[in-house]
Amino acid sequence: MTEWKNFDELASYKALGSAKKVNLKEVMAGESGAERVKKYSVPMAAGLNYNYAAKAVDADILTKLCDLAKEAGLSEKFEALYNGEVINTGEKRMVLHHLTRGQLGNDVIADGVNKREFYEEQVKRIADFANDVHAGKIVNEKGEKFTTVCQIGIGGSDLGPRAMYLALLNWAKKEGLFKMDANFISNVDPDDATAVLNSMDVSKTIFILVSKSGTTLETLTNEAFVKDALKKAGLDASKHMIAVTSETSPLAKNPDYLAAFYMDDYIGGRYSSTSAVGGAVLSLAFGPDVFARFLKGAAEEDKLAAKKDPMKNPDMLDALIGVYERNFLGFGSSAVLPYSQALSRFPAHLQQLDMESNGKSVNRFGEPVNYVTGPAIFGEPGTNGQHSFYQLLHQGTDIIPLQFVAYKNNQQGNDVEIQGSTSQKKLCANVAAQIVAFACGKHDENPNKNFNGCRPSSIIIGDQVNPESLGALLAHFENKVMFQGFVWNVNSFDQEGVQLGKVLAKRVLAHDTDGALAEYSKLLEI
Amino acid sequence: MTEWKNFDELASYKALGSAKKVNLKEVMAGESGAERVKKYSVPMAAGLNYNYAAKAVDADILTKLCDLAKEAGLSEKFEALYNGEVINTGEKRMVLHHLTRGQLGNDVIADGVNKREFYEEQVKRIADFANDVHAGKIVNEKGEKFTTVCQIGIGGSDLGPRAMYLALLNWAKKEGLFKMDANFISNVDPDDATAVLNSMDVSKTIFILVSKSGTTLETLTNEAFVKDALKKAGLDASKHMIAVTSETSPLAKNPDYLAAFYMDDYIGGRYSSTSAVGGAVLSLAFGPDVFARFLKGAAEEDKLAAKKDPMKNPDMLDALIGVYERNFLGFGSSAVLPYSQALSRFPAHLQQLDMESNGKSVNRFGEPVNYVTGPAIFGEPGTNGQHSFYQLLHQGTDIIPLQFVAYKNNQQGNDVEIQGSTSQKKLCANVAAQIVAFACGKHDENPNKNFNGCRPSSIIIGDQVNPESLGALLAHFENKVMFQGFVWNVNSFDQEGVQLGKVLAKRVLAHDTDGALAEYSKLLEI
Repeated sequence: MTEWKNFDELASYKALGSAKKVNLKEVMAGESGAERVKKYSVPMAAGLNYNYAAKAVDADILTKLCDLAKEAGLSEKFEALYNGEVINTGEKRMVLHHLTRGQLGNDVIADGVNKREFYEEQVKRIADFANDVHAGKIVNEKGEKFTTVCQIGIGGSDLGPRAMYLALLNWAKKEGLFKMDANFISNVDPDDATAVLNSMDVSKTIFILVSKSGTTLETLTNEAFVKDALKKAGLDASKHMIAVTSETSPLAKNPDYLAAFYMDDYIGGRYSSTSAVGGAVLSLAFGPDVFARFLKGAAEEDKLAAKKDPMKNPDMLDALIGVYERNFLGFGSSAVLPYSQALSRFPAHLQQLDMESNGKSVNRFGEPVNYVTGPAIFGEPGTNGQHSFYQLLHQGTDIIPLQFVAYKNNQQGNDVEIQGSTSQKKLCANVAAQIVAFACGKHDENPNKNFNGCRPSSIIIGDQVNPESLGALLAHFENKVMFQGFVWNVNSFDQEGVQLGKVLAKRVLAHDTDGALAEYSKLLEI
Repeated sequence: MTEWKNFDELASYKALGSAKKVNLKEVMAGESGAERVKKYSVPMAAGLNYNYAAKAVDADILTKLCDLAKEAGLSEKFEALYNGEVINTGEKRMVLHHLTRGQLGNDVIADGVNKREFYEEQVKRIADFANDVHAGKIVNEKGEKFTTVCQIGIGGSDLGPRAMYLALLNWAKKEGLFKMDANFISNVDPDDATAVLNSMDVSKTIFILVSKSGTTLETLTNEAFVKDALKKAGLDASKHMIAVTSETSPLAKNPDYLAAFYMDDYIGGRYSSTSAVGGAVLSLAFGPDVFARFLKGAAEEDKLAAKKDPMKNPDMLDALIGVYERNFLGFGSSAVLPYSQALSRFPAHLQQLDMESNGKSVNRFGEPVNYVTGPAIFGEPGTNGQHSFYQLLHQGTDIIPLQFVAYKNNQQGNDVEIQGSTSQKKLCANVAAQIVAFACGKHDENPNKNFNGCRPSSIIIGDQVNPESLGALLAHFENKVMFQGFVWNVNSFDQEGVQLGKVLAKRVLAHDTDGALAEYSKLLEI
């Protein structure tokens, strides 16, 4: 059985706390810096590379982090997870999102079925459906082809799929693989659904209703919104809607939907981009082959995550360095900075993935922990961020560790040369410059123009944002968050912290309030 | 002359540090909580209200914060600012963005002109231009009306105008005031410009090139991109482009542009939404009247900011409470959570406004300060965020103070009733519930389901996102950030921290690198 211990009970916790801190500015200067950039690098899947030269670690700290990985049994815990142990102990569920894209261990049987086969079957069913839509075999009431797909979902049913769609949209157009526009309705704010519905021809739209339980308030409300719009347009909702849900939900096997594709309780919303939740919309938008390539990239990264040596496991190493920064260097937040416009909403997805998974104060046995856990995560694409919040990152009073992501090539191959360089080269030059500026700083007699340096970052470098590299990138962060949760001994797969708000909102709507809640309700004229 | 002292030299710094902390959970319970919600409220402009009942303050701390305001001379400093004193001491410039929307003090003369008259003249010139475009007096080469406007700018020339455009888009459509679609190109990533250009009919598009200096690398590069596209389409770029720039820039009085509208060195990019930078795109998209209403809302809020009593000055009070949380409660970041899809990019704008203004480690004399300054800012619209990062906000190990914004009415008036309530009511019920959940928590025997509470928030409540309330909201945060900069004794109006990256990026492009920078350049194949 897997042994779960609090982080501060481990010998490596003490060892890391008393380890000599690295002066990043010093080690990144001159020849030493050049050596680090060459050496502190681990291959990821799909041609990506994780380079951590500009992190405040050295051979001593890396050794201690490797000791931590061993002592905390990170590999054994991952092994237990992918072999079907009940890792989501709070909700007493297995954690099977890796199985949606590959099989790392034994057959996992749940609910009487082989789960790998089950997920593969859903991908196959989605592929058949998408192919039929694209071929004009599934059409609207007038026999016209569907041109648009619209996902109705919130949180994990929205952020991941939306970020992945945006990441691949222009790539797919360039490659001639674009099939259908995708839109997304998520917020319960009626202005969201209204604006999205007004922006498209609903008569040629397939709506994907995504809710595991079939009971998410926002999603059901927005479904009603959409059905209302379809009805007003004289259309039959059941010919325009499909569901992605669990087999036991009221949305399953329901004649109100053209088709239903299944996920299950073993896949948390924020880990569902590689399940039917991402599969339906991505297969419809770009074709099943693109989704298959996305899964392949994720599966390859998972294989690396299963390596026992952290120095060869980019996901585990990234996790360990993040823990070191959080618990021993005291950094409270972290920024994700993709130098790619295609990844404009990737930080919003990571924000959920990380903060919802590891924003916990109790361990997996429900006991309060005595150390900090998940940081706050934010980010915007570079170079935009450089002209926005980078001022604070460079010269603010708090240090915020950074995660850069950059690609040698853009997606659309359209570029211009200005002042002797292309936009793509300028983009890459900026990210290289930023890493060094943050790490090394620059002395200036005028303190206002002085840069202290010692601000750590890592960078993931790839060839291009495409399905394989996107899958690998996504899996990298999923696995990183998982390993960090193992170290902190928290359950990264539940989200009890979102429940109280739901309960109180229901009370407000039922006018069953007193005290402050009643007064706020008055102010808002509810 | 204004007296500038470091925060920790003030008597109120000590007084606040030793003040008894408020147990938010206790004071927000029962009748005491109800009283606070009624009492802890200050009117803002345009029907908005700032309610700080759920902040960890009480009569004692508020008194001490008022003492701080007096001792730090916040009102006098604002007075000096709007009367034209050189407040941006580092760059030796006046700070005049308030003058773009009203005049609070004396005439301000600079460069030989009355600056209020200068800004008004630009608004008038933009209005005339926009009216001519809308009336079909200014047309493309074929004599066709322009249907689309596309802003080329980055940072302050992008985030604010883009957020404002998105905030008013659906309102304008509903009100019949929508004139032209707007698009934005910002990132030097060529995939940004390519995708935007592919999404519109360039032959019917007016491009607005926004760069104060006329030398911003990203913006000039994207201008070349656009000119290339226009040329390929057989179009004359000078008939499709206008400039927003300073009168001394190479873009001014230049036959390459159909028209040029002016800003100046007294308006920082992040404070430029109410100048020609926001004026051109908003007047073209929605008509000059809408932009005038936006300015009116901002001007009204500025008048409140000039009130000497912090208890009647929502901008100053918000600033003071934020300082208290940052310096005495030790919170490192803050989240902005608008319960309105229209404000989806408002947090990104505030992120720049706040982090670029107050992310400084030296005071306005260039001396290091011994206290923390500006926090990290992030946010997404509610209810989306509830299904994403709220888990950490509720149960994470760090406390993150929150700024809610909510409206009684939506913009488009389209709604459905499900389970006895409309979407709009559900939206409002959720924000009310969240405030109380964060502040009061809820005890549960199962620690995993336990909520400690004591997590502070404030809420700004309005009737609807419309031009006046949007202007007021924007000005509120601009003024809040300004007052916080005064307390921290930093220069909120320069951004020296963005320079080093630019210098190093140029070296990379010139292949003038060594050490780590040379190695990163190799990895990125620059």
